[in-house]
Formats: sequence, C-alpha cells, structure tokens
Amino acid sequence: MTVKPAATRFVPTREQYAWTFGGCEPVMRIQPGEILDLYTEDAFAGQIRSSDDLPSRSITYPFINPQTGPFHVEGAEPGDTLAIHLIDVQPARDWGVSTTVPLFGALTSTKFTPTRDRRVVTYSALDSVPRTELPLEPFLGTVGVAPAAGEARNVLVPEAFGGIMDTPEARAGTTIYLGVNVEGALFSIGDGHYTMGEGEVCGVAVEGSMDTLLTVDLVKGVYCEWPRLEDDDTIMVAGSYRPLEDAFRIAHTQLVRWIAEATGLSVLDAYQLVTQGSRSPIANVCDANYTIVAKIPKRYLPDVDWMGGTHRRLRGIATATRDPQG
Amino acid sequence: MTVKPAATRFVPTREQYAWTFGGCEPVMRIQPGEILDLYTEDAFAGQIRSSDDLPSRSITYPFINPQTGPFHVEGAEPGDTLAIHLIDVQPARDWGVSTTVPLFGALTSTKFTPTRDRRVVTYSALDSVPRTELPLEPFLGTVGVAPAAGEARNVLVPEAFGGIMDTPEARAGTTIYLGVNVEGALFSIGDGHYTMGEGEVCGVAVEGSMDTLLTVDLVKGVYCEWPRLEDDDTIMVAGSYRPLEDAFRIAHTQLVRWIAEATGLSVLDAYQLVTQGSRSPIANVCDANYTIVAKIPKRYLPDVDWMGGTHRRLRGIATATRDPQG
Amino acid sequence: MTVKPAATRFVPTREQYAWTFGGCEPVMRIQPGEILDLYTEDAFAGQIRSSDDLPSRSITYPFINPQTGPFHVEGAEPGDTLAIHLIDVQPARDWGVSTTVPLFGALTSTKFTPTRDRRVVTYSALDSVPRTELPLEPFLGTVGVAPAAGEARNVLVPEAFGGIMDTPEARAGTTIYLGVNVEGALFSIGDGHYTMGEGEVCGVAVEGSMDTLLTVDLVKGVYCEWPRLEDDDTIMVAGSYRPLEDAFRIAHTQLVRWIAEATGLSVLDAYQLVTQGSRSPIANVCDANYTIVAKIPKRYLPDVDWMGGTHRRLRGIATATRDPQG
Amino acid sequence: MTVKPAATRFVPTREQYAWTFGGCEPVMRIQPGEILDLYTEDAFAGQIRSSDDLPSRSITYPFINPQTGPFHVEGAEPGDTLAIHLIDVQPARDWGVSTTVPLFGALTSTKFTPTRDRRVVTYSALDSVPRTELPLEPFLGTVGVAPAAGEARNVLVPEAFGGIMDTPEARAGTTIYLGVNVEGALFSIGDGHYTMGEGEVCGVAVEGSMDTLLTVDLVKGVYCEWPRLEDDDTIMVAGSYRPLEDAFRIAHTQLVRWIAEATGLSVLDAYQLVTQGSRSPIANVCDANYTIVAKIPKRYLPDVDWMGGTHRRLRGIATATRDPQG
Repeated sequence: MTVKPAATRFVPTREQYAWTFGGCEPVMRIQPGEILDLYTEDAFAGQIRSSDDLPSRSITYPFINPQTGPFHVEGAEPGDTLAIHLIDVQPARDWGVSTTVPLFGALTSTKFTPTRDRRVVTYSALDSVPRTELPLEPFLGTVGVAPAAGEARNVLVPEAFGGIMDTPEARAGTTIYLGVNVEGALFSIGDGHYTMGEGEVCGVAVEGSMDTLLTVDLVKGVYCEWPRLEDDDTIMVAGSYRPLEDAFRIAHTQLVRWIAEATGLSVLDAYQLVTQGSRSPIANVCDANYTIVAKIPKRYLPDVDWMGGTHRRLRGIATATRDPQG
Repeated sequence: MTVKPAATRFVPTREQYAWTFGGCEPVMRIQPGEILDLYTEDAFAGQIRSSDDLPSRSITYPFINPQTGPFHVEGAEPGDTLAIHLIDVQPARDWGVSTTVPLFGALTSTKFTPTRDRRVVTYSALDSVPRTELPLEPFLGTVGVAPAAGEARNVLVPEAFGGIMDTPEARAGTTIYLGVNVEGALFSIGDGHYTMGEGEVCGVAVEGSMDTLLTVDLVKGVYCEWPRLEDDDTIMVAGSYRPLEDAFRIAHTQLVRWIAEATGLSVLDAYQLVTQGSRSPIANVCDANYTIVAKIPKRYLPDVDWMGGTHRRLRGIATATRDPQG
Repeated sequence: MTVKPAATRFVPTREQYAWTFGGCEPVMRIQPGEILDLYTEDAFAGQIRSSDDLPSRSITYPFINPQTGPFHVEGAEPGDTLAIHLIDVQPARDWGVSTTVPLFGALTSTKFTPTRDRRVVTYSALDSVPRTELPLEPFLGTVGVAPAAGEARNVLVPEAFGGIMDTPEARAGTTIYLGVNVEGALFSIGDGHYTMGEGEVCGVAVEGSMDTLLTVDLVKGVYCEWPRLEDDDTIMVAGSYRPLEDAFRIAHTQLVRWIAEATGLSVLDAYQLVTQGSRSPIANVCDANYTIVAKIPKRYLPDVDWMGGTHRRLRGIATATRDPQG
Repeated sequence: MTVKPAATRFVPTREQYAWTFGGCEPVMRIQPGEILDLYTEDAFAGQIRSSDDLPSRSITYPFINPQTGPFHVEGAEPGDTLAIHLIDVQPARDWGVSTTVPLFGALTSTKFTPTRDRRVVTYSALDSVPRTELPLEPFLGTVGVAPAAGEARNVLVPEAFGGIMDTPEARAGTTIYLGVNVEGALFSIGDGHYTMGEGEVCGVAVEGSMDTLLTVDLVKGVYCEWPRLEDDDTIMVAGSYRPLEDAFRIAHTQLVRWIAEATGLSVLDAYQLVTQGSRSPIANVCDANYTIVAKIPKRYLPDVDWMGGTHRRLRGIATATRDPQG
C-alpha cells in the first residue's frame, strides 16, 4: 500500500491577497515535490453575489482578481524554470457569476449554477426566457511568477511571466513551465473560471472560487522565455501581447524553437510541422495583453522527453495523490 | 427509387482561371439547386511539383491561387444572400505540396503524400529524418463572390465578400452564406488544402488540386454583411481584417447580432452566451487580411431555423446526390 | 517673352465621376507635359450644404468621394512611374463643410468659411459660442492610379497605388510619383480639403470643391512600389496599411531604400540618417487603411538628382504656367 | 535686484541609478517650487564610447537607460497632479552616440559630435563618405512617476505614468503634468537625446548625458489620467500603447476631453476643432509601447487658464532662475 502524500492547505485571509506579480512578500516557503491544496477567491473577491451587486459599486479598481500567493519555492534561482502541475481544479462554491459591461454603461450580472455531479453550468438569461446548460470545464485564469527586470505587474496583465492568460489549458492534468526571474520564483494562482468561451469575449467568464491541488518542480539551468504548457497529449506555448498577431507570433515562434531544440529537427522542418499540425486557441482578447496558445499533439513529433520528462514525473506524484491505492 | 441528380462537371482551362473576385466575366450560368462538380487547380497553378521547382522561378505574382469561376447564379440580386453547400471536397491528386519562405530568402519545397484510403497526409522532412502522418482534412481555402462598391479584389485578399479565408470549416457538409453584391452573385472557389494547422503559420498549407461537389441556393431579401457558415452542429461567422483583433471583433459582433435576430434573445444575453460558449478558431494570419471564425454549437441556443432552414434543405439535396438509394 | 502654355480644362459631369481606382474607362487621353485644369467635387458630391443636410439622408454609400478622372497618359506602361506635379490647388467655392459622426449616431454638420484673400478658414461652433480662424491650407485628399494585380479599389481605400492618402503634402508645389500598373496609368484626383489636422481625427476634414492645375511626366523603366513625394525642400514616402505601425514601417523602409539607391549611402547609414533626421506626419487614421508619410529635408542628404530631376523639370513648367513673364 | 533661486545639484552614483518607475526608494525629498539641477547618464549608462564598444558586450539587459531619481515631492498625494517644468536641458558632454541593430545581428556604433555653440550635431557616416549637420535639439526621452495599482515598470516602457515617451516636446520650456499615484509622486528623469527624428526609427536617438534644470508644482485634487504637456503656445497629451492607433486614440480622446472640460466647449465642437487644428507627432515606434502626442495651438482655443495657470507660474520661476537680473 502506498502512503498518500499529505497536502498543505492554504486559504488566504483578505489581507493576504496579492494584487501584483512581483513586489509582494511570500505567504509561505515550499519544497519542490510538496503538495499544495489552495483556495482562490473569485475575480470579484466574492463581492458579487446577486444581480443587485453592481460591479461599479462593489469593486474598487485595482482590487480586482485577488491572487493566492506568492509562494517561495526553495532552490529556485533566476535562470531556472518552475514547473507547476495542476492535479485537481474544482469549484469551491455551487454558484459562479458573470457580468456584461457594454459600451454605454448598462450592466447585468448573471448567476450561473454549476452542478458538480452532472458536470454542467446552467445559464439563466436575465432579459430573455431560455435556460442553457454548458459543460463544466474549470480552470485557473491566472498562473504566474514574479516578472524579470525588477517589474511588478498588476494581476490583470498577462506577459512573459504568465499571469492572467485566461487559457482553459490551465486545468487539471496540465503542467505549466515558467522561467524563474527572482530567488524563490514567487508564484501565485487565481481567477478560477467554471467555464468560458474562447477569447473571453465580454471580458468576464463564469467566475468562481476554486480549490486547487498542485505540486511543483524545478528544471535547473533551463529558462523558458515564455510560458510553456504540457499535458499527456500536447505541448503548448502561451504568447501574450498586443496587437493580437504579436501574441500569435510569439507563441508560434517559441513553439517552433522548442521543438527544434528538443528534437533535433531543423528549424525549417519544425516550422513546416507546426504550420500543418498546430492549433492556435485564442485565450483572451480582453485583458491588458491578449493571449494565444500554440499547441501541437506530441504524436506528430519525434518521441522525446519534453523538459527532461518533468511532466511525467509530476503526473506520477499526482496519481499517487489522487489515488492512494494506485 | 430516387433518381440521382446529374452533376455539371467544369474543369477550367488555363485561360479561364480567375485572378480576382469581381471584374471577371462568368464562365457559366447556373440555376439554384443545380449540382456542380468543379475541378480547382492548386495555389501554385500546378507549377511546383518537386523540391527543384522554386516558387521564385515558377510563379509570377499576381498569378497565384487561380480560381474556378465565376459562376452566375440565375435570380441572384444585390441584397440577397447566396448559400453555397459543399457536398464533397476530395483531393484530385495523390500528392500535395508546401513550401517555406523564411525571412532570409532560404526556401524549401516539401512534398506531402495524401493517402486517400487511409485518410492521412504523410510528411517527409526535407532537412531532417522523421516522417509524420497528419490526418487528411481537405477543405477549400477560397470561397467568395464579387465584392461591393464596384471593387475587384485580388484572390489573395479575404474580406466581407469571402475570398481566401483559409478556414478548415469550408469542408464537405458546410453551407457558406455570402451577401450578393452584383447581379448573379458571381462566385468562385479554389485554393484546396489537404491539411493545415490553424493560422497557416508559414503562409502555405499542404496545397493540392481538388474535386468539389456543391450546390447553391438563394435567401432572397436577406443580406449577410460578413460570411456566415453553418453545418449540422454549429453556426459560424468569418471576420477578415487587420489587426487580428479586428477580425475577432467583426466575427463575434456579427455572431451575437445573428443570434439575437434569429432567436429573439436580447443582445446582452446573446453576448453572454457567446462569451461562455463560443470557439474562435484562427483561420489565417498570413494573408492580406487575417481571418478568425466565431462559432457556437446550436445545442447551446434556442431551436430555430437558421437562415430560413436553408442548410437543412441543401443537406437534403446533398444526401440524395451522394446516396442515390437514400 | 515666353508663351504661357495653354491648360486643358475638365469639369466632370455627374455621370463621369469615378468611384474606384481601376476598373473605369478613361475620360480623356493626355500627353506628358500637358497642363490640366481640373475641377473636383467635394467628398459629399456637393450634397451637404447646410446643417439640415444630414449625411445619412443625402449620401448613399459607396457613392462618396467622387474622383475626377481617370486620365490615360500616353506612353505610360507597367513598370514606369508617373510623376504628377501640382501647380496650383485652390478652393472653388467660398464654403467648405465638415461633419461629426460620433459612436451613438448623433450628427452635426458644420459649415466653414474659407476667406481666400485672408487665407483663413473660419470655424463657427454649432453647439458652443466661439469662432476660430484656422489657416487655409488647401490640398487634395486623393491622388492615385489604377492598382496592380487586376484590382479595382474603392475611392475610400489608400494603398500602394495612392488613393485617399489624406496627406496635406499633396498641395501646390509637390510632385507625386506613382508606379504605373496598367497601360496609360489611369490617374484620378479628388477629395479637396481646405484645411485638416493630422490624422483627420473625426474622419472628415473641411471638405470642399477644388480647381487644380497640374502637369505630368513619366520616369521610364523605374517603378515606385509606394507613393513618393517631392517638393523643393524634402523627399517623402507615403505608406498606407493597418495597423498604423505597418504604415509607419512601409513609409520608413521605402525612404531608407530610396536614399540608399539614389545616393550610394549604405543602407545602415541611410537608416541612421532617417532615424535622426526624418519627420513622420500622420496623414489619416480614419480610412480603410491608415497613412503615414516619412519625410526628410534634402539638405541633410547628399546632393543628387532625385528621380532623375523630374521635380525640377516639372517645377520649371509650373513656373512658366503661373508666371508667363517668368 | 532679484535674488536668483539656488538650485539643488544632484548627480547619482552608479548604485543610485533607478531601473524602474515604482518600486524604488527616493533619493531625495524636495519641496514644490524648489529648483533642481540634475545630471542624467546616457541610455547606455556611458558604456558606449567608440565604435569598438559593442552594445552586446557592454550592456546587460535590463540595465539600460538609468534614471536619475526618484524624487519624493512633499505634499503630493494620490489623486493630485505633479507639474514638472523643464527650465533648461543641455548636453553634458561634447559627444553623443547612436547604434543600429538591424535584423541580422550586424551592428554599428556611430559617434555624433554636438557643437554646443553652433547648436548642431555632426554626423559622420561609418560605412560611407558624407558628413551631415543636424540641428542640436536636446530633450529628455524619459520623464515619469510611480505607476498606479502597485506596479513597478521597467524604464523601457512608457504608459499612463509617463516614462520613456521619447517625445522631443519634453524640452526646455515645457511643463509636463503627471497624475500622482503614490505618496510623494516619486518622479525620475533620464534618457537625454541630443537630436532625434520622429518615431526613433532604428530605436536609438543620438544619446547623451544631460544637465537639466527643473522645478515642480502640485495641482491638488486634479488627476491627469495620461501625461499632459504645455508650453507657451500649445497644449498636448501623450498616449502610449500598442498598436500605434491605440496610442493615437488615447492622445486625441484625452485632448478633446481636456479642451471640453477647460473651455466649456461641447465635446463635439472640441472634437471638430481637434480634427481640423491638431498635429499628431509620432514620438516612438520602438519601445515596449508606442507613443503619439496630440497637440493644438492655444490660439485656436478659447483663452483659459490651462491647469489653473500652473505653466505660467512655473515659467515665472524659470525666468527668475535663468535671468537673475530679469
């Protein structure tokens, strides 16, 4: 019988919320391989609970999108890469919320009901009759580390350090690789989404608090310039910039480069493979930078150990955690 | 026993190729409901057959991407919408080709082998060792009508009139709706792709000649400002512009408006549904305008007859055509 | 005593207006060196005469911005460059007009009074009290030839063929060089502005009909990819595209290349000189493409005959025309 | 006889350089109305002195563009505006430097010689023969305060807090208004340019160390969202964002709003005046955000006290400083 690893639970107090990446003191020091069980508040800091709670009254910018963290990872040094493996991401409440803020100041708040057992989110239109069920697809809108060059960035800006990328790929089963810029890496997470269309068109997904189980590892001496993601089937890079084509260019250039370095394919051949075999899901077109993910199935590529096999190792820890009898 | 409708076969001569949308004499007049069986040459006009055929020598701009058409549809008048239903789109050759034209002038031509029975495209890297099989997913890069305002546009420009949108959604089973700007609509098709990643990163998909079976219908008195697409499961709008976020905005704004008009949902509720339920596949980030498709499953929406049930009717004709015993 | 060259006067009828560049039959054939005296109607085709004439009622898109032309220049062949020298550009009426079309559909029409003797334009605010005098700085918003690649473009689109660049540099004393794409070049002019701020912020300058005196010449065997402009003191290139930084890149890249070719400076040295010495006036940020002009004083550059001395020669003809005793 | 106000001289040591806006301890506390005489090192921190000093070897990112500051202004509170009046901006050395970093890695360093008496900058081409004299037009590329929302931004990013706007308008005689986000405002300056073309095309102006004489004031209870500038003749707003059209939109929207608020003109009338009378010089198209300045002559506008007459008051202090007999 395997002993199930113990998870460290952390629920931030209101005073512990982080509002920037960089420039915050760590809330905790952790070891690579340690399991964390983290609570994240929703993007409205839990202040919008009914269609009477108008964002304009309940929320004071910039105190939107509180992060849980930052966590100092022992041994992480500038020039390394931090690997964060999401073991489980589950709604912590039985309701989520979204709002629409159209150009002329009108405003609606819409309450969604995620039914965890049936794995759906029910949408009740505010102005119109019909009800709709969308699949429950929980993920973290925000995963990031302290930025480079001494910067501290607001939690509404995604960039090379990660942050509010708003990609549904940041879900259970995915490993996120982020280049380490400061001692301890100082990562935070937040902005749980119960479901979201691509691009987060109106700027607000079905927002909700989350319970996230994760573990981390370090890839020493390798620095990812932009966030890489890996799950069992695909490798991905997230690019975040403006205009949107620059996000696209960053993501695909980095993906081509990663494939060429890891497989020994020439850059031009990697470029051809990406051209014919990649997918480019738009993550957000609403934040301070826009995000696009370039992804390609591993089965189209030579069989190599991506990032030194880190994802597979963390997956093993995750399996042991979720299934103690494993 | 149903009598299978006869299809009109058309293979353009080299002199009949169309190089613009608008400004060309029709090659044929057809009736709504008629079945066409059209041959399209590849984007290189069949001039690239081995890695010795350098595009710079074989191709003279602007004679790239020859179109088959235009076809004059009897009864089509400005203010109507033309519905083109793709019944079948099949590779007409057992090889396709792609090239890479990187910044510094280097150049590779790569031959792909589509195996029609096994439905795969085999990729043999030119500089490196491995072979890869990608799924055979044939579609038409170009579908369009004559533009508005007296314009004639080069076949390398997608816009409100359709054209080289390069979306894999233009495949067998899809109906494409295009607003009619001139008497007869004057539609053309071309630019067959055997497979392609999203965004057509290097600017060239696996290009190949095609045999396309299609039929058309008219939606009288309804004008689509931007191309709409419909298949059995989803409705879509294609936006084409620069920068890429403008293509995104066009596609999603038009989709929200279409849903609100057709279902009676308020615009804000339609906006919320699109935000949480849409997908936004990038079609191209390489042409003179960039293209994004906004799509949403019909099952998330009230059950209505989209575009007056045109797709369902054309689907019936298609089924009778493909399956004479049907 | 010099004999003053006779000018050919042309005033288009309503039926002769051109609404595209390309795709129109010439209204006249002319010889290089011939003097033309052309009337152009304002962008509203003269339909807005008071603040009661709402554009939404008086104007039917795409019949905006009528052009005078096209003119077939004898001897102009694809691969040549057409030089158009503006000898004089004068308001043909004692009133001009502008409108504001804000986002929500509100609408104002404002009448400006250009006082030709005092060389000012008087602005009377519609909603508010004050009157303001702006300097009278008449220029042509639109100068262009038939585009390449068989295209016909709406008169609201500037591009490599010129068109509605909306640059105040297209004024008396300037020579505009445009690459010839079709037999006869087929140039047109229009969209007179009595004055305009940079960027044409609200989309409408002080619009007015014009009398323009011009002459043309051919630079055989030299093809300008983008519009070049030259006056006595400066050389310029106009780039038109989206996003705005691409217009900037086109204009400056072309200017660096032009300088390097004409002067023998290395590309890097030309690049340095342009970086430290150029000005980059924004022409428009409101049309279908945006336009930026890159300009540099000739006195910062080696003393060469720009475009084979064409501007100087045409300037000579102009002087003889304006001043018969010259 | 007027007593000339004493200026406080400050020359930062290498350890005192600031590399971010925000996140730095103040180097000094000052009073409104105090005169500062500040030395700023050049953007290369003085490390490039000949064409043998390759930036790639001498400079370690992000230690580019050291700032002198930040200065804590007594009494400055979030919600106020800080006014910085530049009294004098003079080259502190008799040489400046520029480099070109083209796409392929080639690299040149070019030394310019500003002749202070003759007020010119002499350019000796590195690859080619000619010498050119450009006018000496010294200004500060960087003027900024600590950003809002707890951010710290690298000195290579211009935004709402100012920073590396690279506008030649930041020269002697100009007052720069910046919204205060933190106690004390914490402003810094740097990046002296001896001359520069618009757009800073190759990314590097003629860079040089500077001696700057300035004074500051507070506009209590008024918060400028974006940097405003004022000199004796014009008012201006600087917008910094991507793509370039967004910088344009920010600058002009803010200028229209400022005029309407200060003069009582309706927004539409202010919009018309800006459309016909503004200039929109491009400041940079090379930094992490692009900058455009919208400017309009005061003589086109109603005669009001802009920003409560702050510029005029500071101008008075400046005159007393420069001309003690004044």
